[in-house]
Amino acid sequence: MRTLGVLIFPEFELLDVFGPLEMFGMLPETFAIRLVAERERNVASAQGPRSVADALFSDAGHYDILLVPGGRGTRREVDNPALLSWLREKAAAADMVASVCTGSALLAKAGLLDGVKATTNKMAFAWVSSQGPRVLWQPQARWVEDAKFVTSSGVSAGIDMSLAVIARCCGEEQARQVALWAEYEWHRDPSWDPFAKIHGVV
Amino acid sequence: MRTLGVLIFPEFELLDVFGPLEMFGMLPETFAIRLVAERERNVASAQGPRSVADALFSDAGHYDILLVPGGRGTRREVDNPALLSWLREKAAAADMVASVCTGSALLAKAGLLDGVKATTNKMAFAWVSSQGPRVLWQPQARWVEDAKFVTSSGVSAGIDMSLAVIARCCGEEQARQVALWAEYEWHRDPSWDPFAKIHGVV
Repeated sequence: MRTLGVLIFPEFELLDVFGPLEMFGMLPETFAIRLVAERERNVASAQGPRSVADALFSDAGHYDILLVPGGRGTRREVDNPALLSWLREKAAAADMVASVCTGSALLAKAGLLDGVKATTNKMAFAWVSSQGPRVLWQPQARWVEDAKFVTSSGVSAGIDMSLAVIARCCGEEQARQVALWAEYEWHRDPSWDPFAKIHGVV
Repeated sequence: MRTLGVLIFPEFELLDVFGPLEMFGMLPETFAIRLVAERERNVASAQGPRSVADALFSDAGHYDILLVPGGRGTRREVDNPALLSWLREKAAAADMVASVCTGSALLAKAGLLDGVKATTNKMAFAWVSSQGPRVLWQPQARWVEDAKFVTSSGVSAGIDMSLAVIARCCGEEQARQVALWAEYEWHRDPSWDPFAKIHGVV
């Protein structure tokens, strides 16, 4: 059983969180999901709907896998020392640290991605990459795996990245099965990224 | 401005709700999102994470568009007279009624789909179709539009269906733009459904 800690903060992007959690949530005997917020339990997403945190920063808690979403709240949270410090502490103890969309801006600002290959949303590429000048930013990638860090591109890319993480944890066949249950056409190739060109990054 | 009422109930499927809401939520000047639950504000999904309802059945409320998710909670809710009665009342007043996955079992059981072409999750096809013997069930379809009803196939199909609804409300170019913002490869063809064969429905 692996504990999956999912950071939520005001104005997180809905699909960055719930795309991955749909996939991990199909395997409840393998992944225990915990939403974690700073101080308030009810957290409103960028789209409005509110989620309830299972734990707060003040609670002790070890997460085998850490998932960091994006959303316009990241523009504020890159300047939140409590959040960056929590990320550094939990990432150090985790086996795997995953991000979706502009979530990698938070990891970068926390210094966790220095010297690491990483990617992000292609529409926000300039801003995100400015948060970590020593990160080896990849302008064209659906997701990037480098040691324990798995960073993905914008919003829906988190679903493909999560299936790759499930394949790493549970085998390719299990990931394929999860995608079928969700009637999801999985992009298995991490270099598939037509959006890099559309959004003018390459 | 159109009000989008999204039904949530215990053990709703996460992506059935939040895939569509990611898409509609990109257009906050067009769609006002309201999560609606029966009696309790905090509602746990099938995958665990809890959402907070913005309104309860007892609140007055008109919804221009109604969205009904699936999830294993539907197996219980098909026998909930309060929920079926709420659905009948709100669907009668709505301009459009959409469902994802086994959400169409609830619409069918409420009698709303009699004589209407509709689809559902292909893994649960036999059970869902047994909830409405007079429904014109379509065994192979990503989504089906028939008058004001738009029913979609399993889980991730709700994203494609939502983009089709956005195209109907706001034009094809707006829907294309929303898909690009989410870095989502939209399946625009409602007859695209490889899962019908994989899950043995056709």
